[in-house]
Amino acid sequence: MTHILQDPEDFAADALRGYCDIHARLVRPVRGGVLRSTETPDGKVALVIGGGSGHYPAFAGYVGPGLGDAAVAGDVFASPATELIAEISRKAHRGAGVLLAFGNYAGDVLNFGFAATRLRGDGIDVRVLAITDDIGSAPKGEEARRRGVAGDIPVLKIAGAAAEAGLGLDEVETVARRVNDRTRSFGVAFGGCTLAGAKEPLFVVPEGRMAIGLGLHGEAGIDETDIPPASELAVLLVDRLVDEAPAAPGTRAAVLLNGLGGTKQEELFVLWTHVAARLRHHGIEIVAPLVGEYATSLDMEGCSLTITWLDEELEQFWLAPCDSAGLRVGNTLPTRPAPPLPADDAARTTWPEASPASRSAGTFVAGTFMRLADMLQAAEDELGRIDALTGDGDHGMGMARGSRAAATAAQDAASHQAGAASVLAAAADAWADRAGGTSGAIWGLGLRSAANALDDGVAPTDEAIASAVTQAVEAVMTIGGARPGDKTLVDAFEPFARTLAAQVAGGASIAQAWSRAADAAKQAADDTADLLPRLGRARLHAARSKGHCDAGAVSFAMAARTAGETIE
Amino acid sequence: MTHILQDPEDFAADALRGYCDIHARLVRPVRGGVLRSTETPDGKVALVIGGGSGHYPAFAGYVGPGLGDAAVAGDVFASPATELIAEISRKAHRGAGVLLAFGNYAGDVLNFGFAATRLRGDGIDVRVLAITDDIGSAPKGEEARRRGVAGDIPVLKIAGAAAEAGLGLDEVETVARRVNDRTRSFGVAFGGCTLAGAKEPLFVVPEGRMAIGLGLHGEAGIDETDIPPASELAVLLVDRLVDEAPAAPGTRAAVLLNGLGGTKQEELFVLWTHVAARLRHHGIEIVAPLVGEYATSLDMEGCSLTITWLDEELEQFWLAPCDSAGLRVGNTLPTRPAPPLPADDAARTTWPEASPASRSAGTFVAGTFMRLADMLQAAEDELGRIDALTGDGDHGMGMARGSRAAATAAQDAASHQAGAASVLAAAADAWADRAGGTSGAIWGLGLRSAANALDDGVAPTDEAIASAVTQAVEAVMTIGGARPGDKTLVDAFEPFARTLAAQVAGGASIAQAWSRAADAAKQAADDTADLLPRLGRARLHAARSKGHCDAGAVSFAMAARTAGETIE
Repeated sequence: MTHILQDPEDFAADALRGYCDIHARLVRPVRGGVLRSTETPDGKVALVIGGGSGHYPAFAGYVGPGLGDAAVAGDVFASPATELIAEISRKAHRGAGVLLAFGNYAGDVLNFGFAATRLRGDGIDVRVLAITDDIGSAPKGEEARRRGVAGDIPVLKIAGAAAEAGLGLDEVETVARRVNDRTRSFGVAFGGCTLAGAKEPLFVVPEGRMAIGLGLHGEAGIDETDIPPASELAVLLVDRLVDEAPAAPGTRAAVLLNGLGGTKQEELFVLWTHVAARLRHHGIEIVAPLVGEYATSLDMEGCSLTITWLDEELEQFWLAPCDSAGLRVGNTLPTRPAPPLPADDAARTTWPEASPASRSAGTFVAGTFMRLADMLQAAEDELGRIDALTGDGDHGMGMARGSRAAATAAQDAASHQAGAASVLAAAADAWADRAGGTSGAIWGLGLRSAANALDDGVAPTDEAIASAVTQAVEAVMTIGGARPGDKTLVDAFEPFARTLAAQVAGGASIAQAWSRAADAAKQAADDTADLLPRLGRARLHAARSKGHCDAGAVSFAMAARTAGETIE
Repeated sequence: MTHILQDPEDFAADALRGYCDIHARLVRPVRGGVLRSTETPDGKVALVIGGGSGHYPAFAGYVGPGLGDAAVAGDVFASPATELIAEISRKAHRGAGVLLAFGNYAGDVLNFGFAATRLRGDGIDVRVLAITDDIGSAPKGEEARRRGVAGDIPVLKIAGAAAEAGLGLDEVETVARRVNDRTRSFGVAFGGCTLAGAKEPLFVVPEGRMAIGLGLHGEAGIDETDIPPASELAVLLVDRLVDEAPAAPGTRAAVLLNGLGGTKQEELFVLWTHVAARLRHHGIEIVAPLVGEYATSLDMEGCSLTITWLDEELEQFWLAPCDSAGLRVGNTLPTRPAPPLPADDAARTTWPEASPASRSAGTFVAGTFMRLADMLQAAEDELGRIDALTGDGDHGMGMARGSRAAATAAQDAASHQAGAASVLAAAADAWADRAGGTSGAIWGLGLRSAANALDDGVAPTDEAIASAVTQAVEAVMTIGGARPGDKTLVDAFEPFARTLAAQVAGGASIAQAWSRAADAAKQAADDTADLLPRLGRARLHAARSKGHCDAGAVSFAMAARTAGETIE
């Protein structure tokens, strides 16, 4: 369906005008089509391409250095007029002759053929190539009757490279005919295309069905079937083409998996893995594959696969640089391949060097996480019940799973002589990765921030602990975006951190300071828990949509008290 | 609707695997995302980007030289996990720090923020940028709350160029924040997107309606309206953005017109012309615009417009080369602008030098075309009636229109002292261009082939005339594809040419020879005309589908006789 248009009658011309403005670096508009806007040397064979519109990037999108010299554009799905082809060819001509190339359709054959006759009358040497890649349009032995579909692209790319390389018209024609003879395409459609301004598609494929061998303009296909999984679709496409391989195919091939307009790139990527595997199964080496929209039919849903069996010269031209809106080959920046990556470690076994005091503190931290995990496992149901008052009730499960993973990771790190900072970091990362949900990420973030504030080289002082806790709550508020009063764990965490810092600064022992901070957290959490059932759903929803967890204050206060019980 | 898939659960991962295989020149797969496959020098700031899948080319498509160093990919529309972001960032890190850049969504903010905390714990300098370009998602004054949409692309492009240029992390971050502050996007949707494997879209826009300001995942928009013409849509998009221009915007801007997945390139091209005009109306100079699919939402129908107001440094980075699957900037071949084209001639006024005898023959040819045009005008209804027996009845009209145009052009050429060959060529071209339909093209082709066989330097001999007619029928048969017996004008043309050549070779005068040839044509045409009503529709349809016209033999025979009457 076309939603953006001005006048349906002018759709093709309007689109071409916009295209020329966008790609002025490459093309300039002329009556009936486009011409390169870059300088072309005298004595270069001109490649003039074209056909009906509605197939972008075909054909105007393939004009530029290393590809077409000009494109003639008819109305949607209609051949361009003879005189426009001749007129544009005269402008593109650089004294070395013209190759006219287009898909094999009656109207195009006639108009390009007639244009060639006119140009010859002007003394211009012209060759005419109707591209015939679609094996769905005529049987073996009648190759010359076949339509041109996405095989246009390798044929034009290779012919364009031959012309750019300075070959004469005889040679360019020979190369172009050879690549056409060695190119085969086959396509399927899941849905029809709709002309600009029309309410109904040109044709319909029943829901869940797939038309096989259907043409770019809805020409009748050869079969219809249920849509198979990607792996089977790949086999269907590849095997039909391989069965039609030209004589002396060789083993190397250019491959194009083309979307018809209404099929997403991601779908083509999914299909590609299976196509590539099947091609390799047949012993075909894939050379610089193209996957994307290269010859479309407005919004038709479907795809086609094209194979061009290469020889040495064709491969050289396939890989030669070109620059167009629809196809670019070659580097814009010099590059070299990167060295291989080291294998991912299965499990971490080395940790930063730690002082004896810090290692001892690390063992203590690991023990605290074991207590925490046991407590939170026991509290799982209670926390779930509180969470279910206002949310989806999974808070207890997440806290239990996260704290258990943290405890295991902390024990592992401590057993490898890690210091307190490293043990806490290991616990943090494991909690975030295993707990799931927002609260897991928040706990991981807070613990990691605290770990980053510590140093494996020395035993943490009381001041260092208080400072680490302060940095943790600041990270949670900054990154999580919640403030005290938002009914999240920050409601308890913030007074905890503030009290802890004040108590330590006032000379209290860390055990005393922690205990008073845990009391402050508990009081705040109780206020929150009392309030939760009385909050409106809308306000809760708003808080949750920011990624906050309403039972978080309660579980934080529990955790703070349990941790405090381990501090001697 | 997704038609190509293997397992819906694995859609994002499957697509990423295919993408990596296709673009192995640029990227290599790592757990949870992709890394450049090209060498990156030590000391370069690493740009690590990412977010949910389903937005291709965002984000994996923007990894490559001059752009991202790595991309982390979550599941469809879901943030990637913290540890994957951290792990991939460690692999991308080249000792100069990491900029994490992503669209501003709660899950991404949390996971990238937490990953940054972990990386800092590893001693890596990390900066975090949540991109906030979508003016539809929060009002002025609350810019930091806005979502990131297609504005991701200019921000990532410019930050990537800054990193590639060797700037330090502080400078890269400064540039990235500045381009984000100077980038605004606004979008509309005509239809919702459908998750792989789902039968229903995530949301629906009523037929003929347009959601304004809707988010990339279907987040509620700010308004809904009837779909306007492209010109009005352009004003809506441009004016809203211009109204939100940053402080000190300057006059030069990078512009991106983005398709959301289900909107065709041609539609974007149509819209672009109006967008560009409106931007220029506001005094904005467009710098290297991008029009296409850059940040999609599966198959969502709609588009967005992004403006990045440039300063000198930002423009330099916007234009710097980059190489990725989703965006390439820079030449792959050296080019220079082409010289301007000469203006098209309004009408041709000069012709090749012709001998007096050929000029005289040219005047005779022009007179013959006047007689032909008069005769075919008189016969228009009769030819239409014969054609309607088997076809659409427009043959008479086409022949009348074509022959009148040919006569006018021939008179004009003759009045400019053109020789016989040039007069015939002018008639041929005018006939083809004005008659329309297949018969017009065929007549033009035949006449042009005959003209090409003559020479303006000498008066045509009888042998030259017979030879020109033979070449004409051969061109018609070769290019048109019809043979005698196919019920086309070839049925009459072929015996005409054969008889003419034989008579001339046998010593008959051209007048006698032509008269006998015309008789042969008439007899063949009568046979054909008698046969037409008795042919089955299927056989006629087959002939017509090849581009043949059934009344052509009759009109050819009439024309041959009329032309003969002028030969003295």
